[in-house]
Amino acid sequence: MAIPANPAFKRVGLIAKPNDRRVETILLALFKLLRWRGVDIALDNTCADILQARHLELGSRDRENRCELFITIGGDGTLLHAAHMRFDYEVRLLGINLGKLGFLADISPEEVNDRLGAILDGHYIDEKRTVLRCTVWRDAQNVARFDAINDTVIHHWNIARLIRLDTHINGTFVHSQRSDGIIIATPTGSTAYALSGGGPILHPSLDAILLVPVCPHTLSNRPIVVAGNSRIEIVVGTEQVGHARLTCDGDKGFDLAPQDRVIVERSDHHIHLIHPANHDYYATLRAKLNWG
Amino acid sequence: MAIPANPAFKRVGLIAKPNDRRVETILLALFKLLRWRGVDIALDNTCADILQARHLELGSRDRENRCELFITIGGDGTLLHAAHMRFDYEVRLLGINLGKLGFLADISPEEVNDRLGAILDGHYIDEKRTVLRCTVWRDAQNVARFDAINDTVIHHWNIARLIRLDTHINGTFVHSQRSDGIIIATPTGSTAYALSGGGPILHPSLDAILLVPVCPHTLSNRPIVVAGNSRIEIVVGTEQVGHARLTCDGDKGFDLAPQDRVIVERSDHHIHLIHPANHDYYATLRAKLNWG
Amino acid sequence: MAIPANPAFKRVGLIAKPNDRRVETILLALFKLLRWRGVDIALDNTCADILQARHLELGSRDRENRCELFITIGGDGTLLHAAHMRFDYEVRLLGINLGKLGFLADISPEEVNDRLGAILDGHYIDEKRTVLRCTVWRDAQNVARFDAINDTVIHHWNIARLIRLDTHINGTFVHSQRSDGIIIATPTGSTAYALSGGGPILHPSLDAILLVPVCPHTLSNRPIVVAGNSRIEIVVGTEQVGHARLTCDGDKGFDLAPQDRVIVERSDHHIHLIHPANHDYYATLRAKLNWG
Amino acid sequence: MAIPANPAFKRVGLIAKPNDRRVETILLALFKLLRWRGVDIALDNTCADILQARHLELGSRDRENRCELFITIGGDGTLLHAAHMRFDYEVRLLGINLGKLGFLADISPEEVNDRLGAILDGHYIDEKRTVLRCTVWRDAQNVARFDAINDTVIHHWNIARLIRLDTHINGTFVHSQRSDGIIIATPTGSTAYALSGGGPILHPSLDAILLVPVCPHTLSNRPIVVAGNSRIEIVVGTEQVGHARLTCDGDKGFDLAPQDRVIVERSDHHIHLIHPANHDYYATLRAKLNWG
Repeated sequence: MAIPANPAFKRVGLIAKPNDRRVETILLALFKLLRWRGVDIALDNTCADILQARHLELGSRDRENRCELFITIGGDGTLLHAAHMRFDYEVRLLGINLGKLGFLADISPEEVNDRLGAILDGHYIDEKRTVLRCTVWRDAQNVARFDAINDTVIHHWNIARLIRLDTHINGTFVHSQRSDGIIIATPTGSTAYALSGGGPILHPSLDAILLVPVCPHTLSNRPIVVAGNSRIEIVVGTEQVGHARLTCDGDKGFDLAPQDRVIVERSDHHIHLIHPANHDYYATLRAKLNWG
Repeated sequence: MAIPANPAFKRVGLIAKPNDRRVETILLALFKLLRWRGVDIALDNTCADILQARHLELGSRDRENRCELFITIGGDGTLLHAAHMRFDYEVRLLGINLGKLGFLADISPEEVNDRLGAILDGHYIDEKRTVLRCTVWRDAQNVARFDAINDTVIHHWNIARLIRLDTHINGTFVHSQRSDGIIIATPTGSTAYALSGGGPILHPSLDAILLVPVCPHTLSNRPIVVAGNSRIEIVVGTEQVGHARLTCDGDKGFDLAPQDRVIVERSDHHIHLIHPANHDYYATLRAKLNWG
Repeated sequence: MAIPANPAFKRVGLIAKPNDRRVETILLALFKLLRWRGVDIALDNTCADILQARHLELGSRDRENRCELFITIGGDGTLLHAAHMRFDYEVRLLGINLGKLGFLADISPEEVNDRLGAILDGHYIDEKRTVLRCTVWRDAQNVARFDAINDTVIHHWNIARLIRLDTHINGTFVHSQRSDGIIIATPTGSTAYALSGGGPILHPSLDAILLVPVCPHTLSNRPIVVAGNSRIEIVVGTEQVGHARLTCDGDKGFDLAPQDRVIVERSDHHIHLIHPANHDYYATLRAKLNWG
Repeated sequence: MAIPANPAFKRVGLIAKPNDRRVETILLALFKLLRWRGVDIALDNTCADILQARHLELGSRDRENRCELFITIGGDGTLLHAAHMRFDYEVRLLGINLGKLGFLADISPEEVNDRLGAILDGHYIDEKRTVLRCTVWRDAQNVARFDAINDTVIHHWNIARLIRLDTHINGTFVHSQRSDGIIIATPTGSTAYALSGGGPILHPSLDAILLVPVCPHTLSNRPIVVAGNSRIEIVVGTEQVGHARLTCDGDKGFDLAPQDRVIVERSDHHIHLIHPANHDYYATLRAKLNWG
């Protein structure tokens, strides 16, 4: 088998879940494959430490470099985390899972050689996924800004009581809702927390934003799906002193004050998920949701 | 008050719910208003009979004429029925409800003079709503064709048992599902039967199709929302001899045979709902769903 | 191994799912085991035909005999069907499934020798399960009577429209509901159709009756659980000419007329499920519902 | 009208929601009515302060006294709070709501004279409601004990991530669940937070305990109803350092440590709700849940 003259990606970054013993075997296989193909490799600290301990010639230990592709070794969380570091450009990501199929990290360790080889040969699907831009306004001041690939959640905090949130879409009042909180999700996030909250599944190609109330007091407060170019505004009720919090993709937290306005819109940037050419979204759904 | 020189709609059709005593008063007010404005009027039989009994000079009794606007007097069902007669062109419809706010018939009798006057003056919103085209294929033969504004439903029939339906989207297998049936809905239909089945609310401006399983045996079979240009194909299971039926907008029925393929796609045509300029979709949702 | 002097059940009936090739092997093993233990055997036609074809000395071909225990070979449906033949006395049933675990038929073919041996030795759990008695009244006349182990369902029939049902519990009006129908279930039935309809799981030891609306028009119409000695009365709406049907355990059908009153109460009789001594209801739930 | 010789309750305590202007008018009417009937009155501080400001002769300012009946003026929360002070004996409570019907405080201000008069004459329903006893065990030590009329909730705390909880019922393992938390509710609590979480309605006369998962990761984790004498044990996952919290009736909070065991059982005590003789539970449900 000849070495391909011209790999589809000339510079590839490797990012791994820290402190997981299963990473090493996959990383070594990846490293060997990429080297053999003449691909330039950038390593995060986790990968660099593992390879250094094996006295392997390193690629650059360079997290910031704008690689043409980032390969993550871990779960969906590892891929989300990798993307969050690189929202400023149209990052391409490919996820290798550590044994358990993910919605995002959908290549298993056994498939690495076959699937990755084909992808480096240029046989792949480049799937754009929407990113949400979330800004918080307090007294006409922008006090925080976050990006989210899955969801922006406003949740009660430090109390067991309901919070009141007023929702506006494109400037029109929707409802004043008492609940545990609200999830504002992308199609990507529709199979994450929003699904547990009772939301529908949104196909990734759908240009839409999903709003899911969490345990709403009014039983007819149902999930709402709006067009992807909608501007969602949530105003925190006046009673919620210290008791409402904003979280993006489950790990950025920001304490909301009464009357804070949270604006959620589609970001100008996307992330790009790189899949094998035969990628099948519904096969992943069936496997993850035990659809017989 | 001067008669406007140039009404926005020069020919208007009037369509009423049959056998409802509340129609007459509204119809007379409408007739007077339209006449005074010099609008050409076409009547369905129900309207023509009522006006004739009052010895009023009739407009044309002409259901087929391509009016620039149809005004329905009744409920959402009356407007749906009126639209179903006119799927071959881009029909414009405005619904006056008989006292109870509808999702489609959203003008109350008290508002007729003010709202309709403004609309005839050209102050209105023209809202395009998606129509579904549904075709049934049996042994490579097209055996039926329907249009739906709300939904296409495949439902068990004449039995209390589950039916098996295989779903494909854009040629990709989604799942084989045992359930009471499946609802394939437009955003318009998302607040009709699909909502009772546990589906989300889709904003009318969203270009999407909604699939809602009815009482699925597998509890993780959840509603799915796909892009509006998707091609949905449902294949009836081999066991369902005489026990599956297709219904569009709740009143067109067609008996499905085992292995029948039902294809649902967005139609090339739309319907146009004419609303007052200050129309507020979310206010209707709040009122209909008792939010608040 | 000595033959036990005194089996716990002296006369055992065997009942099998018709036309299923997997029955024969299990039946032969059962037959051999029971004979060896000196148990008197009664056979249904399916079992008798299979054994006769093998020239085995038959037990009595006697469906009506009041055996101390009936063993069913099939699925949950086979056990339900066997019980329905014998509601007039406190029948004991044990279900062997054909490979796929059931909620009722919870002994696998591999376990037959071990588990059944122990049960015949007297090591078993005798679990009483509630039976519902359902009667239909038309103009003060009792026009039908059914028993149900899982559920009594009133469902729309031959139409795609909602039906209206008025519910009373112990003589008190509960609600007038427009829906696809209503499920009235025992704890046993709570993991059958009622679960697909959105109902909760009721532990079999709970003395309760469950009411689950099917796709109710009013979104706050939720499942209701009432005490086991409650008297449920459902009155069919006046509009439902020919469009409402009663079904018990999924296979007894009865056409309801407008104003028919359906009374559902706990029967005086129970059925008795015989389980191995180490039976674990929650293990069955976990396996059946994929609780990971 | 003669003063009745022998009121049904000789000593009545009055408890009001603090800092609510609507209390005064109702309190004065109540005070007058009870005085006129010769009933001995005990006052909480809120009531005593209001009456003192009006220079009315006070009853005893005595919260601790074991009155035969406590009348609360406020909402359901006021009645719950009053009951929580008196769990050590079989307290009788009657709730007057401040204008908005409650599930517990079901007498409106307008009804006070008629309804309360009849109740004092002995025409009332004494409805026993189950109380839950909740104990927390850490390393075989009992570290906390609470009572709950509505529910015991174990909820994630200070994080936006799922927590893991292992549930056992009567010593049998049920499931290991990842979720936002779990609600363990009485029938009384089934119409409170548990309903927002997707639980069924349990009639107050049902002897049962309800478990409702909050946003469970596994979609088939459904509400479970078990017999009232069941012993529920929830073990907090080892990962939840500082991130799980126990709350009873929404206002008692206790921080749980990894491996803590929370035991929930029916208490030996009940509370008694006193209702007018024509009390209709389902009428309250219909009004509160907007059923038709």
